[in-house]
Amino acid sequence: MSFKSDIEIAREAEKQPIQHIGAKLGIGPEDLIPYGHDKAKVGQAFIKGLEGRTDGKLILVTAVNPTPAGEGKTTTTVGLGDGLAAIGKQAAICIREASLGPCFGMKGGAAGGGRAQVVPMEEMNLHFTGDFHAITSAHNLLAAMIDNHIYWGNDLDIDDRRVTWRRVMDMNDRALRDIVVGLGGVSNGSPRQGGFDITVASEVMAILCLATDLDDLQRRLGDIIVAYRRDKSPITCRDLKADGAMTVLLKDAMQPNLVQTLENTPAFVHGGPFANIAHGCNSVIATRTALKLADYVVTEAGFGADLGAEKFLDIKCRKAGLAPACVVLVATVRSMKMNGGVAKADLGAENVAAVTAGCANLGRHLQNLQGYGVPVVVAINHFVTDTDAEIDAVRDYVANLGAEAILCRHWELGSDGSRDLAVRVAEIADSGVADFAPLYGDELSLFDKIECIAKRIYHAAEVTAPPQVLAQLREWEAAGYGALPVCMAKTQYSFSADPTLLGAPEGHSIPVREVRLSAGAGFVVAICGEIMTMPGLPRTPAAEAIGLNDLGQIEGLF
Amino acid sequence: MSFKSDIEIAREAEKQPIQHIGAKLGIGPEDLIPYGHDKAKVGQAFIKGLEGRTDGKLILVTAVNPTPAGEGKTTTTVGLGDGLAAIGKQAAICIREASLGPCFGMKGGAAGGGRAQVVPMEEMNLHFTGDFHAITSAHNLLAAMIDNHIYWGNDLDIDDRRVTWRRVMDMNDRALRDIVVGLGGVSNGSPRQGGFDITVASEVMAILCLATDLDDLQRRLGDIIVAYRRDKSPITCRDLKADGAMTVLLKDAMQPNLVQTLENTPAFVHGGPFANIAHGCNSVIATRTALKLADYVVTEAGFGADLGAEKFLDIKCRKAGLAPACVVLVATVRSMKMNGGVAKADLGAENVAAVTAGCANLGRHLQNLQGYGVPVVVAINHFVTDTDAEIDAVRDYVANLGAEAILCRHWELGSDGSRDLAVRVAEIADSGVADFAPLYGDELSLFDKIECIAKRIYHAAEVTAPPQVLAQLREWEAAGYGALPVCMAKTQYSFSADPTLLGAPEGHSIPVREVRLSAGAGFVVAICGEIMTMPGLPRTPAAEAIGLNDLGQIEGLF
Repeated sequence: MSFKSDIEIAREAEKQPIQHIGAKLGIGPEDLIPYGHDKAKVGQAFIKGLEGRTDGKLILVTAVNPTPAGEGKTTTTVGLGDGLAAIGKQAAICIREASLGPCFGMKGGAAGGGRAQVVPMEEMNLHFTGDFHAITSAHNLLAAMIDNHIYWGNDLDIDDRRVTWRRVMDMNDRALRDIVVGLGGVSNGSPRQGGFDITVASEVMAILCLATDLDDLQRRLGDIIVAYRRDKSPITCRDLKADGAMTVLLKDAMQPNLVQTLENTPAFVHGGPFANIAHGCNSVIATRTALKLADYVVTEAGFGADLGAEKFLDIKCRKAGLAPACVVLVATVRSMKMNGGVAKADLGAENVAAVTAGCANLGRHLQNLQGYGVPVVVAINHFVTDTDAEIDAVRDYVANLGAEAILCRHWELGSDGSRDLAVRVAEIADSGVADFAPLYGDELSLFDKIECIAKRIYHAAEVTAPPQVLAQLREWEAAGYGALPVCMAKTQYSFSADPTLLGAPEGHSIPVREVRLSAGAGFVVAICGEIMTMPGLPRTPAAEAIGLNDLGQIEGLF
Repeated sequence: MSFKSDIEIAREAEKQPIQHIGAKLGIGPEDLIPYGHDKAKVGQAFIKGLEGRTDGKLILVTAVNPTPAGEGKTTTTVGLGDGLAAIGKQAAICIREASLGPCFGMKGGAAGGGRAQVVPMEEMNLHFTGDFHAITSAHNLLAAMIDNHIYWGNDLDIDDRRVTWRRVMDMNDRALRDIVVGLGGVSNGSPRQGGFDITVASEVMAILCLATDLDDLQRRLGDIIVAYRRDKSPITCRDLKADGAMTVLLKDAMQPNLVQTLENTPAFVHGGPFANIAHGCNSVIATRTALKLADYVVTEAGFGADLGAEKFLDIKCRKAGLAPACVVLVATVRSMKMNGGVAKADLGAENVAAVTAGCANLGRHLQNLQGYGVPVVVAINHFVTDTDAEIDAVRDYVANLGAEAILCRHWELGSDGSRDLAVRVAEIADSGVADFAPLYGDELSLFDKIECIAKRIYHAAEVTAPPQVLAQLREWEAAGYGALPVCMAKTQYSFSADPTLLGAPEGHSIPVREVRLSAGAGFVVAICGEIMTMPGLPRTPAAEAIGLNDLGQIEGLF
């Protein structure tokens, strides 16, 4: 059996003009700001006019812990959206935008795969509608204004050893992680240590994705803490008067992007914060807009459910007043096998025992998610190498937990392969049984929130933290930040802080090495392990093989 | 008398849908890639299909040496385009895109002024269609691939002391001029000195503006010299295999942008290389496309005619096979007064003697331009404070040189104010008297080319250069770069290298301090004085006052 590549399928897509896609949601051509013929932004004024409308049903797609085998979370999000549309529901999907930088390293696209893709895939993996460039510009304008302020006399008394605001670039460039700026003498300023993160790690990205409108965006930008004085009092973006200009730079980027799936289902692709030091889901404004326009909105969270879904539910839903009607938990036979101890090279051979053993990971996520009061369906994302016995093993495991697992073949068949899942998800969403509540209350102390997540989601025995971390948390509580949610930055490969510990470990210890305050985004980041905020390129970067072919098509990007 | 501000006028513009503007040039909606409703890119396939069509007439707008009084070169370019359209000619204008970074420092927009503007002005001064962001990404991908190559073992034997490729950002950020990258230990690479230029100073920008199509773009990108080995042999972008991926990043940016003037005349706004270390005019592909589509194409060159027009004629026209049919030399009474020794604060008072004295600057440019074999018309860009006697002084001076000066009031009146100029320019262009030839031949040595420009355009007595500069030029000649044109990087305020020497100095010395090879762009840069390739922000950046008002309009940007 041979299959077409993702890019071959994407090139054959019968795309509809973006105005037709908008019309499916009741957006007139005058309210769509076109970017080419197949992409558009939805106008701010139109979005404002939707206030007061009833929301559709929100469906969250999340997954087991990621393995090199691949789980297909975005593919399932797209497939479910197409499946809902195919059974006659008015549906839309909401996913994140792709970061340009990593495309030149190793990673390919982030637009689904097979017959379950969002198009135009090339552009979504390159500049798209320029949102990430706008975020880069806004972030770096603030950085330039900080050094400029110091240069001209430092009226705000910024302690140049305590400038926490770094610069960003949408590029994998390890040489920029740790740099000294301001060399070259008087006219270039004072030397100080600095560095670049990748754009998706910017707090501006997290803010854009949590802001409800342009006023809220500017308020949050103003709240960003960029540095401290020698007395440790904070200096904000507002103190530097950068919030207005940053808002202007982000004005267009705040408008959600509309594209389509291969089956012409409307897809909002907007925002893309890191899933470790940020919350890892698409923008609140896109999700809210989609909910006003469609009866069913399928969206996804980053990484596995322990990180991505937890943040989606405890940060995004809490802050934006959203409540999912159903959660879809994606697993694959292959990833269960790896969780059961099989090496990637041996995934081809049938191994029912390993699948069953690995299902402990799936079961843990399932039960965690049920704890939020939302019904959960497991989607088994089918690979052509899966055997019936292996698939049955997953099904049986889930059934024994009192839940149900549905086989999906959208990668191979498009909506024909996701019909069963779509029917069931729609039933659950319509049933109204969901009764969402976040994991913890705002009133818990910051450390208690971390402990709550570690114990109830990660099943850890304890949380450890050095005294300065505990002191820092108490300082922030005293300064009025105690009601913020926490954003866990932990390996995505395990429930524990050890990426090699697969399955469903228990009794481990979660070490909080460092905490950071994202005062604009509105969360406290707890860093548990090595977190890379500026990736590097591999020995042979993908970029070396990227180019235009004789037909002017892009080769090597995917 | 009170006048509306530029932004007030721009907001009142009765813009036509961009498809209507395209239709004026015979571009169908399917060949326009819309960016919003009032901006579009012209498709590559459509442009390819224009080959073989007869070209329209090319009209260059240049100016006297810039003074703080303002000359209004872009305003006159727009006004002349509108004037030609108003007298029934099929006209288009071609200007540069604005750099985003400086908008947050001091400088306002670059889209004309008064009743002679290109719209949408806000977007042109912000992200526009993302071209500069694409250039930034392509440039920095190459930078990342250089450091990555060294990191993984340096098979190409790059001498890390001789990496000439810096990074770029579209921001005024002096702290990034001179930095050390690669700090932090083994996993971040080796420390080395580096720095950032502003994006418009990137060689990628110059290349995009000189490339004739995507193949030529990739070839030129491949030719970029990024570093040298210890034996001083060059390492190119092609050696690093970055040229293909950079071309992919620039694919959309290579398509010219179409917008409109306040009077709905088609305006191509594309590319924006520095006018010092690069050639300072809009893209070849935009100019060529406009010439295939319009009977009259009005374009402008950077700075004064000594730098901007010289480079337009000796670099862009030579390389792209273009030949102007007429040159318009813009002067103002105010700038003549400043050249005649009046301080900016005293410009309000009538001073005919100073005007006449300052006209020496105008006369010098006029005669220089006539040396290229192209007829020259002086446009006196009217300011409401000009007196009749002052205007007559300029007219008389020009008449005494056997040329003609035409008063223009397009700033105040739009095309009603530029009708006389338009009529005369069309007559000259139609007469076919132009017989363009560049100043020097390809066969001259690189130093002789510098000397030719210095003596014949700047009226210098001599060119001085340290021995290592002369040796470097000879090395490049030996390496096969001798036929390249030279790109002078000199103060724009004077014919000499001394910015305070106004008027028409003679007998001065032009010191070439440094030379640089832009092998991809295809010129050798001769640096004569301090050239700033990364500006800083002023004490009170314009950004502090930029923001959205209650109507959601941008305030403070202009």
